[in-house]
Amino acid sequence: MASRDQEVTLLSAWPSPYSMRVKLALALKGIEHEDLPQDLGNKSKILLESNPVHKKIPVLIHKGKPILESAIIIHYIDEVWPETSPLLPQDAFLRAQHRFWSDFIDKKLSDSLIRFLRSNGDAAVNEEFNQNCLLIEGALAELGSEEEGPFFGGASMSFLDVLLAPYAVWIPGVEQAMGLKPAKCPRFHKLLAAASEHPSAKVALPQVEKLKEYIALRASER
Amino acid sequence: MASRDQEVTLLSAWPSPYSMRVKLALALKGIEHEDLPQDLGNKSKILLESNPVHKKIPVLIHKGKPILESAIIIHYIDEVWPETSPLLPQDAFLRAQHRFWSDFIDKKLSDSLIRFLRSNGDAAVNEEFNQNCLLIEGALAELGSEEEGPFFGGASMSFLDVLLAPYAVWIPGVEQAMGLKPAKCPRFHKLLAAASEHPSAKVALPQVEKLKEYIALRASER
Repeated sequence: MASRDQEVTLLSAWPSPYSMRVKLALALKGIEHEDLPQDLGNKSKILLESNPVHKKIPVLIHKGKPILESAIIIHYIDEVWPETSPLLPQDAFLRAQHRFWSDFIDKKLSDSLIRFLRSNGDAAVNEEFNQNCLLIEGALAELGSEEEGPFFGGASMSFLDVLLAPYAVWIPGVEQAMGLKPAKCPRFHKLLAAASEHPSAKVALPQVEKLKEYIALRASER
Repeated sequence: MASRDQEVTLLSAWPSPYSMRVKLALALKGIEHEDLPQDLGNKSKILLESNPVHKKIPVLIHKGKPILESAIIIHYIDEVWPETSPLLPQDAFLRAQHRFWSDFIDKKLSDSLIRFLRSNGDAAVNEEFNQNCLLIEGALAELGSEEEGPFFGGASMSFLDVLLAPYAVWIPGVEQAMGLKPAKCPRFHKLLAAASEHPSAKVALPQVEKLKEYIALRASER
């Protein structure tokens, strides 16, 4: 049995795409951990103490120390457990490309989907989200190799694939609950289909039906 | 003489804190490069081709390939030229801390200073900037060791010190041109004073006087 200070704990919330990423990375690496789902309407002492600046999930607690922000947590996981399922590429230029698109996903792609939800389905914001998806499609054509497999990492999931995987449930969820009209992005679509069928996704991603109900409920509360 | 594809080129703009960071990292590492200052009112072909998504400086071009976003460029520089002046810590947890505060600096600290400028000196935004500076002060107390030296990296500049160094000219510049009232943050102040006196800063940071005039001119154009 691992000693207490070796334990890995995740503070999460099931609908959060940022939590899903971390769960997926932990599953890909086969890292045993305790999942502590958080009530974000009534933040716990452990969450407020672990992330006093942003007070947000996900938080990974390893050896008693909190690691914050999903992309940073996944960097950490990849550095501490490098052997199984390496996520960041070895080549410095490719690593820079992964970090660039990671930034793009969090600053532009996520942001446009959140604004679509908040606007209750504004067509102009839908179009903005689609333009961002088309840029991901272009990045896949540039960085991925269709012959090797559907992912940025070819046959296996890499850093960017883990960051994008939650869109496999979030895009259809928002489509069904709020009428999002997604752009035609065949390679991005293939990536998401492969991600949702991956064995690690079974434990990391919720069912679309459940997420759809959550999104519709949240929209009705606004 | 280095072959053409080994050349390092920087697309920059002198008042940009993001450009200053990269110049500072290149100077700390002793990396010879060509600086190509950009006219941001009339964007060059090389800038548009190198950064088609955001069309922003700085861009580092190494072996003909563009690397984008200042924090990502500095990660890249540290990975490709690791021997001289290592910037990111070796320990995975400390690396995660550096990445967390890097995100905070770009999302919160920079953002509040930019909003202070755009608001023409709003007191509430000044207070918000000061609260963010106090969080940096707290991070310095937690991660730095005053006995070892003024920087997050102790006696030598680390990743976070390079990211923060441009505030050594930007804070007094905004103070003098727009009446910013900075918070009392003795350790952050010491860090900035040491950064501005560092030999590498002489080539990377402009004079406060010149920056002050630039800030006042931009404000008068609004």
